[in-house]
Amino acid sequence: MVGNDIEKLIKIIAKLPSLGTRSARRIVLQLLKKRETLFFPLIDALNNVAENIKTCEVCGNYDTLSPCSICSSSSRDSSVLCVVQDVADLWAMERISLFKGKYHVLGGILSAIDGISAEDLNLESLFSRLEKENISEIILALPATIDGQITTNYILQRLKSYNIKITTLAQGIPMGAELDYMDEGTIQLALNSRKVL
Amino acid sequence: MVGNDIEKLIKIIAKLPSLGTRSARRIVLQLLKKRETLFFPLIDALNNVAENIKTCEVCGNYDTLSPCSICSSSSRDSSVLCVVQDVADLWAMERISLFKGKYHVLGGILSAIDGISAEDLNLESLFSRLEKENISEIILALPATIDGQITTNYILQRLKSYNIKITTLAQGIPMGAELDYMDEGTIQLALNSRKVL
Repeated sequence: MVGNDIEKLIKIIAKLPSLGTRSARRIVLQLLKKRETLFFPLIDALNNVAENIKTCEVCGNYDTLSPCSICSSSSRDSSVLCVVQDVADLWAMERISLFKGKYHVLGGILSAIDGISAEDLNLESLFSRLEKENISEIILALPATIDGQITTNYILQRLKSYNIKITTLAQGIPMGAELDYMDEGTIQLALNSRKVL
Repeated sequence: MVGNDIEKLIKIIAKLPSLGTRSARRIVLQLLKKRETLFFPLIDALNNVAENIKTCEVCGNYDTLSPCSICSSSSRDSSVLCVVQDVADLWAMERISLFKGKYHVLGGILSAIDGISAEDLNLESLFSRLEKENISEIILALPATIDGQITTNYILQRLKSYNIKITTLAQGIPMGAELDYMDEGTIQLALNSRKVL
């Protein structure tokens, strides 16, 4: 019923995160309706990103430059390195505009279930940065999940021989949350790490 | 923090139906991660559709051909015309594989609130099809809303002078629905249009 080209496009769009066939269909119809204001600008923007965006060879961030603008910035503190799972997490950190150090993107975390081992992650490049660069603190900002903790512990083991301060993000009750709605693990953790006022 | 090209792409994707900034960000990250398997195929598919898909000059459907494959099909009944609001509705009708007539896409419905008048719709082309083509029945498959009914009535008025059978889709309780969850209007309608078994 629908042209082959359209079917193909719907199938590809349906593969994108948070989309399915129904929403992909609606998106394609919207694109065809608004060719000048939406369809062609989208194609242009996609082409620009596809052509210009590289993976930074130092930290793993996405940017038009490699090394990226964060790695090559002289106003950022090169002695503090924040290790994150993904570029999404790097973007999340940057949105709070508080951290002024640099990053290292692992590109994943260790996972027995998904079969991700240390060789699949950008770990060797992390250790070789520690050899070359003058880094005094590493912040391990990995997910607060079992896999995240295993990865944190693995890196901790590997970093024992280096004389570097290693920190991790504080865990506890998130801002705005009510105790009633928090899981037991979080409450336990928050109680154990309670602070003197 | 994020490259300008990426920001621009996120903004455009966030404008698509059922997406916002957060999901647009996730989509862009996924695209950058899977360049070969997702990003380039998406750009190709979009280009194909942008280049090849036209609006059918007869019925308003989207297809690689104009007149579209439905309009030019000899196996479909040219004497029955189904009038729909949008191409999405045409696709929905085609999915049931039951209707073997042809279509006419209005491109919207009359709406006082949205300021859509008869001139904004493909109505004149509908009437000129009735003059030229040999049509014996028109099915008005417009939305079961106030605006849909107003549009149905408007077309009904305009078609008075033609000697054509005019029908509309049956209204009532949808399949699988429980009375308890239906609105009063639908129950009233279903009761008034009750059938002898």
